[in-house]
Amino acid sequence: MTQPIGEGALAPNRTVSPFADAAAARRAIRSGAWRGHTSGLAPAHVQGNLMILPQALAAEFQRFCQQNPKPCPVLAVSQPGARDLPALGADLDIATDVPAYRVFENGEMVAEVTDLTGLWRDDLVTFVLGCSFSFEAALIEAGIPLRHVAEGRNVAMYRTAIETKPAGPFHGPLVVSMRPMTAADAIKAVQVTARVPAVHGAPVHLGDPGLIGIADLAKPDFGDPVAIAPDEIPVFWACGVTPQAVAMAARPPLCITHAPGHMLITDLMNRDLPFL
Amino acid sequence: MTQPIGEGALAPNRTVSPFADAAAARRAIRSGAWRGHTSGLAPAHVQGNLMILPQALAAEFQRFCQQNPKPCPVLAVSQPGARDLPALGADLDIATDVPAYRVFENGEMVAEVTDLTGLWRDDLVTFVLGCSFSFEAALIEAGIPLRHVAEGRNVAMYRTAIETKPAGPFHGPLVVSMRPMTAADAIKAVQVTARVPAVHGAPVHLGDPGLIGIADLAKPDFGDPVAIAPDEIPVFWACGVTPQAVAMAARPPLCITHAPGHMLITDLMNRDLPFL
Repeated sequence: MTQPIGEGALAPNRTVSPFADAAAARRAIRSGAWRGHTSGLAPAHVQGNLMILPQALAAEFQRFCQQNPKPCPVLAVSQPGARDLPALGADLDIATDVPAYRVFENGEMVAEVTDLTGLWRDDLVTFVLGCSFSFEAALIEAGIPLRHVAEGRNVAMYRTAIETKPAGPFHGPLVVSMRPMTAADAIKAVQVTARVPAVHGAPVHLGDPGLIGIADLAKPDFGDPVAIAPDEIPVFWACGVTPQAVAMAARPPLCITHAPGHMLITDLMNRDLPFL
Repeated sequence: MTQPIGEGALAPNRTVSPFADAAAARRAIRSGAWRGHTSGLAPAHVQGNLMILPQALAAEFQRFCQQNPKPCPVLAVSQPGARDLPALGADLDIATDVPAYRVFENGEMVAEVTDLTGLWRDDLVTFVLGCSFSFEAALIEAGIPLRHVAEGRNVAMYRTAIETKPAGPFHGPLVVSMRPMTAADAIKAVQVTARVPAVHGAPVHLGDPGLIGIADLAKPDFGDPVAIAPDEIPVFWACGVTPQAVAMAARPPLCITHAPGHMLITDLMNRDLPFL
């Protein structure tokens, strides 16, 4: 099984976007003019994690997401075979508007591609899930420093002893991302992220990592470790790697995701997330 | 200096009120029919901490509260000399509607009385501050167990190394109340109490007590210690004892408070607190 590397993989550290808006960024991606990661592209816009599955598995995956909304906040689901997602963008083509895709067969990565047109099938269903770029933007706007952003690292992610609620072939442990902060900032961060359930919402844990089955914070399962100062506590959020890991473990005949850091840029605005 | 004993002093553990509503409870108190503490009386109603000061000090005390809203959430301030507080109850008489008052001169308690009529002066200004009964009711309603309530004890309170923002003669350390809970409940409790800033709002700290200058949780400065389970963290809220302690330390010529646990019952409903 190929390991997922992380939902965001790169922090939202770009402050000036080269594109006027989300639609312009998608057009540049579609034409091949932009092949890089999407961190900070159209920064006021919501970006999404991608999960494409055959229709035969889609209903169970949707039920899995519905039962596990913190790791799997669904922003939109397509009609079977449809490449559009009108809820997320008027001109959006899911087969071309993500800079890099990963194709998995039976849980093994078989290709990384920049266009799904040749692979498209009439039974594919697309799920777009909320991602931590948006809630990290909200934390930064609230004045809460994020160490991995300051250090230019990927956020630290860990498998936990918390089991997700299973649905059909989809089951497995909750994966969390961890951000160290002072208690005062943690209290603030709970309030800020509780307002955005569409992008993971409030933390699932804080303090002693052993209580959720994390043996060593210095050894994340995904991403990079970060230092925790003596006056800080680790704060843990449900992570979008959870559905990726769960989907891989189910070894579906076909499964397509975004490549880490190469997300779908939607027309939704971060500022509207509390009201979705 | 007489030590304040605590804002609530008794937990909201009465489930059936002997009175139909807040006005009926106040009438029973006024007539002398009810002399006990007010915990659980008219349980859906907001109860308030009382602080009565001469007009010469009132402006500075109000500025102190304005600068320290978490320990000092002001629900209402009277006109000088006025015994009514129309914002908190149509027929309310502040000199008779609290079951027991404490009278302090130069920071020393000189009397505990059940009626202020004989002591009333035209220059007295009444402050009613939000109290933790209301937010504890919100926590219990959210399914968060409170150990001191379960054990029938007073909440544990501690002086901290956090200084309040001074105003005139009013200055001193923040006093906090502590409630142990699991991390999941702490995350929930932040969200529940953040919605009610009028009754202390979100916690000021959680986790390591040493970071806010508390040496030993087993030795509270006020109230009773409670056990903390291995899977729990201490969560600290700003406490209404803060303004009491600060006012005593300022040694005003005259100062009148409620007796611990004997609060003012207002017509405000707990359910309206998020919208005040």
